[in-house]
Amino acid sequence: MHAARYLGDAAIAVAELEPVPPGPTQVQIGVEFTGICGTDLHIRHGAMDGRVRVPAVLGHEMSGRITALGPGVSGWRVGDPVTVMPLRWCGSCPACLAGHRHICHRLDFLGIDSPGAMQQRWTVPSELLVRVPDGVPLRDAALVEPTAVAVHDVTRAGLLAGESAVVIGGGPVGVLIACVARSVGAEVVVVEPDPHRRRIAQQLGLSVLDPGGAPGGQEIEAEIRERTGGAGAAVAFEVSGSAPGLATALSVLAVRGRLVVVGIHSEPRTVDLHRVFLRELTLLGARVYERSDFERAVQLIADGTIPASRLVTRVEPLTCAAAAFAALESGGDVMKVLVDCAGQEPGGPDVGRGEE
Amino acid sequence: MHAARYLGDAAIAVAELEPVPPGPTQVQIGVEFTGICGTDLHIRHGAMDGRVRVPAVLGHEMSGRITALGPGVSGWRVGDPVTVMPLRWCGSCPACLAGHRHICHRLDFLGIDSPGAMQQRWTVPSELLVRVPDGVPLRDAALVEPTAVAVHDVTRAGLLAGESAVVIGGGPVGVLIACVARSVGAEVVVVEPDPHRRRIAQQLGLSVLDPGGAPGGQEIEAEIRERTGGAGAAVAFEVSGSAPGLATALSVLAVRGRLVVVGIHSEPRTVDLHRVFLRELTLLGARVYERSDFERAVQLIADGTIPASRLVTRVEPLTCAAAAFAALESGGDVMKVLVDCAGQEPGGPDVGRGEE
Repeated sequence: MHAARYLGDAAIAVAELEPVPPGPTQVQIGVEFTGICGTDLHIRHGAMDGRVRVPAVLGHEMSGRITALGPGVSGWRVGDPVTVMPLRWCGSCPACLAGHRHICHRLDFLGIDSPGAMQQRWTVPSELLVRVPDGVPLRDAALVEPTAVAVHDVTRAGLLAGESAVVIGGGPVGVLIACVARSVGAEVVVVEPDPHRRRIAQQLGLSVLDPGGAPGGQEIEAEIRERTGGAGAAVAFEVSGSAPGLATALSVLAVRGRLVVVGIHSEPRTVDLHRVFLRELTLLGARVYERSDFERAVQLIADGTIPASRLVTRVEPLTCAAAAFAALESGGDVMKVLVDCAGQEPGGPDVGRGEE
Repeated sequence: MHAARYLGDAAIAVAELEPVPPGPTQVQIGVEFTGICGTDLHIRHGAMDGRVRVPAVLGHEMSGRITALGPGVSGWRVGDPVTVMPLRWCGSCPACLAGHRHICHRLDFLGIDSPGAMQQRWTVPSELLVRVPDGVPLRDAALVEPTAVAVHDVTRAGLLAGESAVVIGGGPVGVLIACVARSVGAEVVVVEPDPHRRRIAQQLGLSVLDPGGAPGGQEIEAEIRERTGGAGAAVAFEVSGSAPGLATALSVLAVRGRLVVVGIHSEPRTVDLHRVFLRELTLLGARVYERSDFERAVQLIADGTIPASRLVTRVEPLTCAAAAFAALESGGDVMKVLVDCAGQEPGGPDVGRGEE
């Protein structure tokens, strides 16, 4: 079978590997689609070389169908459409014992710490499977994982109907957060400098602002204040991972506002703690998701709350995985990029793969 | 009457002023004791010259007895022992309308934005009065305001019985937070470099650590990890207002830990947001107090939970207010410094002023 692997030094190459047969309580999945995430780009650029062992099969956003069951697997059949919650926890560290298994001290994030989904056959523990309902195209189901991130972020914020929320960054995760926040009943504004991404967000009916050239997001702050009767926003989601994005997120918040730190800030950031103090703001870290977030994400894609098919702007075959990475990095005209891991396999199932 | 005033350029001087007669719904208080707070030191050093109009009567931690009632005041009598919750809010800004009046957009903090308590007679709106129970010495009652800060901080943290809490900074507010946290049933550790302050905290039965010379609080982090079975602390209170204190506070927290920003960080600080993300930490700004915090503070002093008398290490007469400021700033052997505003007045009431 084919597998796309990160080799170090920004190289992504396709190799011919032997599929791993499923062991006890494991399943083998015929991967259909694997999404490329911002974290995958970070990995490609070496930012996580201390954690990722090369050659590494990346990919943690996926959909597929079960192709083989290992001994002791019950409740699943070959052919079942599935996605995978790509987290394994130790169960015995203080975080696990406190019930926060998704932030386990020894978390194994499949696709980062162990082999991921950018291959034709992926063997995983069956307890990580999440069922994809009938009628949900597998292309859409590849967005369950990033949607679970969005659900987790909105849950961490404690966002309520009628509250105002500002999403800083209108990439895939930002737009997903905006859609989830809107579904809760919040008044949502997305701030995004890229005109193409702004257009996609607008086409989804979202209110969008261009941060423009004003330093420190001053125009955004004034605009949000204006829209909220002078109060400011109840919640800001910092998804850009940038210093200006963080400053803007802090600036728009009302008293007792909550800032959810979603984007990866690899470098320490300067934070105006005096504003945090004066307005009694709350900053919340939000990392991955819990099982309940993942299951909610499946529902939101199934019921159309998340317009998954409209967020996928490009699909590349597995043999062109490197081109898929390059397309995402070039920015401009892309939102979510998927790698089609099954399309090239002669005789592979095609039912329910694409759009309705 | 005498009043101690900040004149600008670090000058504190005593002047002879006419007492203000109480207008409608106001009361005049014969001030007994006024505490000096870190904020007063900031003011003296010009850090708040944009906000404080000189000459300014400072002081917002106080106790006294009512000396005169203005028209329309009910429920109070001359001679009643009182303290004052020194906040006036507008009632109409978005913060007030959202129920967060203590962080009103146009907050009037008595002793900062308008005349304070470091004078022999202080005239204030009667709705700011808080009754001091019989049997509580007025010297102790001067600590109600900083105790209310501590109550508010512990409430913001949502601290629970059995949780571990680290207080960074063992000055008056840090020790008060530690006492309130202990009364909730938390396991409390105070981190303080000054040996005199460590000794006072130890004498109050608190567990105390010296941050020593290790950079970034590494030894403290290891010690707290050790004491918490590898988990880290549930809550950290950053009371030092310093960059190293902030780094230590972040370093000691367990997954989902809460960091309450109590100290004033006038300059933007560098924050490791990646740790906030990885551990799903929460940073909470906490400013002043609500009425319920103030009333709880009175109870905690009355029932002995807060050993108020043991925290007062020096009392200076009002005519020596400048010396009281100097004593507090010299550090070393002081914890809470009070100014005695009544002691010099011939014939002033002396019953119930000092210790039991």
